Amino acid sequence: MSRVLIIYASDWGHSKRMAEAVAEGVRSVPGAEAVLKEAEQATAEDAAAADAIIVGTPVHMGSPDWRVKRWIDQCCSSPWLNDAMVGKVGGVFATGSGFGNAGGGCELTMLSLLSNFAELGMILVPLPKNTPGYGRGGLHWGPYGRSATEAMAPTDVPSEALQAARAHGANIARVAAAVSGARLFGA
Amino acid sequence: MSRVLIIYASDWGHSKRMAEAVAEGVRSVPGAEAVLKEAEQATAEDAAAADAIIVGTPVHMGSPDWRVKRWIDQCCSSPWLNDAMVGKVGGVFATGSGFGNAGGGCELTMLSLLSNFAELGMILVPLPKNTPGYGRGGLHWGPYGRSATEAMAPTDVPSEALQAARAHGANIARVAAAVSGARLFGA
Amino acid sequence: MSRVLIIYASDWGHSKRMAEAVAEGVRSVPGAEAVLKEAEQATAEDAAAADAIIVGTPVHMGSPDWRVKRWIDQCCSSPWLNDAMVGKVGGVFATGSGFGNAGGGCELTMLSLLSNFAELGMILVPLPKNTPGYGRGGLHWGPYGRSATEAMAPTDVPSEALQAARAHGANIARVAAAVSGARLFGA
Amino acid sequence: MSRVLIIYASDWGHSKRMAEAVAEGVRSVPGAEAVLKEAEQATAEDAAAADAIIVGTPVHMGSPDWRVKRWIDQCCSSPWLNDAMVGKVGGVFATGSGFGNAGGGCELTMLSLLSNFAELGMILVPLPKNTPGYGRGGLHWGPYGRSATEAMAPTDVPSEALQAARAHGANIARVAAAVSGARLFGA
Repeated sequence: MSRVLIIYASDWGHSKRMAEAVAEGVRSVPGAEAVLKEAEQATAEDAAAADAIIVGTPVHMGSPDWRVKRWIDQCCSSPWLNDAMVGKVGGVFATGSGFGNAGGGCELTMLSLLSNFAELGMILVPLPKNTPGYGRGGLHWGPYGRSATEAMAPTDVPSEALQAARAHGANIARVAAAVSGARLFGA
Repeated sequence: MSRVLIIYASDWGHSKRMAEAVAEGVRSVPGAEAVLKEAEQATAEDAAAADAIIVGTPVHMGSPDWRVKRWIDQCCSSPWLNDAMVGKVGGVFATGSGFGNAGGGCELTMLSLLSNFAELGMILVPLPKNTPGYGRGGLHWGPYGRSATEAMAPTDVPSEALQAARAHGANIARVAAAVSGARLFGA
Repeated sequence: MSRVLIIYASDWGHSKRMAEAVAEGVRSVPGAEAVLKEAEQATAEDAAAADAIIVGTPVHMGSPDWRVKRWIDQCCSSPWLNDAMVGKVGGVFATGSGFGNAGGGCELTMLSLLSNFAELGMILVPLPKNTPGYGRGGLHWGPYGRSATEAMAPTDVPSEALQAARAHGANIARVAAAVSGARLFGA
Repeated sequence: MSRVLIIYASDWGHSKRMAEAVAEGVRSVPGAEAVLKEAEQATAEDAAAADAIIVGTPVHMGSPDWRVKRWIDQCCSSPWLNDAMVGKVGGVFATGSGFGNAGGGCELTMLSLLSNFAELGMILVPLPKNTPGYGRGGLHWGPYGRSATEAMAPTDVPSEALQAARAHGANIARVAAAVSGARLFGA
């Protein structure tokens, strides 16, 4: 049994929709459980109880939403200090208008969150380019759901991004199961 | 006359001390004015009124303090939308325990803030390695004040980091004066 | 008179085409001169003689082409050591297939090059979102020319990316002129 | 049996010494084999035959040595295209003078290499802060051996960095063994 915590902030529902797709992917793996929470509701206990964490955020001016970072600052500092998360598994996803047609800052946004996981000593799971839906839904760091057209008209995140999000959730649940319980880090 | 806004969050006073040193540097430049504010007190009007912005933060798990990001999300979105900050000048600084003796995540922390400025269309000012104090106080992206010894005993940020912070403030005030009023960006 | 050096590597001509557009933009500014060189032909003297440098690269597996980095390692180490580039101006651009529709790694690729410029003490010029062509041709760090369709069929870089590249060249020439000759960095 | 490929470039022997420590760590794990190669000698076959890859580099002006990137561009493009590395394991390390006492650019240098691994679809292994030697030898992304004193006198990399490098090699060998053979990525 592996338990995957999915944390997100959402303004217009795009990141929420992606988070739900990630959760569906987690649940598609036998023995995996998904716990889905908004960053503002999540606690330090949620982090402690998880075998893997997947964090998602809208891209706000090239970096993560402050609510996501508040959860990390307030709920992950103590497990960081105590090395309580070492060897657990982490992954990320993002959404955004993508103005410019070049990712709109999603890469550094995802890296900022992956940096938090690396500080916690967590194994990081990327998004391989042969993932279903990758062609319109992703970056090597994680799925990205674009929430506007090239002309900046609001739109739903593409179905391919949701497909990539589902695969990402399943991948991470499987990696968590593979490494769970093993003593992988040490002298 | 150029007006430099300095925004910071601080837990134990280290970033505050660095911010004050940056402000001293700004004020050492004839015709430059420094406005110093904690992130929680700063407003959108502060951003609009500034010719340059310098943001500083403690490194929290490899990225900026959530209070700094909240100010950016809440107060800089509207000027971003309206292209009101294009051609202004930006710079950053950070503090942290530096555990590991390799910067402790200050680089991506600074880049996360510089990404916010780049999104706003602002000219970015680095910290040249011939800056006074650089040897113990900096990174090419900005001054870094280490707040703990190698044995992780809390300590004041080194005087060299404050020296680099003063120089950074002065550099940015001079760059702001040099580009202010010119029509530098366009077709 | 400001002199802008444009350095690039190119596999299939996309980055070369972008570099030429950047050069056109530089030359559109009265008093600005563009020097355009492939990375393999450029020298340390080219760097020394320039008021501004713009480097462009294809995205190769999420970071710059090795030929661009070889020029930086071999030709910029000495000016770095001697602080000979401090206060000059830098900018970047990139091209790539963009598979995934999320920038395909262009952000960290551009940041890697901007890091080189920051190490040299150079002022960094972003690409404001109100730049002509931005909507299909850019990121806040610089213009990005996508060289394949969503179905991964090879294509020319879009005209909007060339438009953004021209504007970027002009912007950087103007910033270089504004700061050239001023003593902006120091104690 | 897991096979760990260690690739490095070295100017003065510091990265070579770190690479040897990583290899010792790999070999300390029962059933793990280390293959140690300079970037200029390594081939595409080396990548194909490995279960895990660890790449190390001196920090050159804030990004990796061009010789390391040439190996990636020339030897990893074909496995990238064919998704041949998906699910393998990757890690990084770096060395540098560390002028400034803030990492000297090692973070973006390591991230640039980790980006290459993420593009290849490889699972990324960080350096937990409870790793032996971390206090003077590391960053959350990997071990960092500082090769100069604060006064910039050349020095050997500290023993703590070698200790962290050994642990990193062992960690990665264990993670590679844990995930090897499992079908972890897919729809």
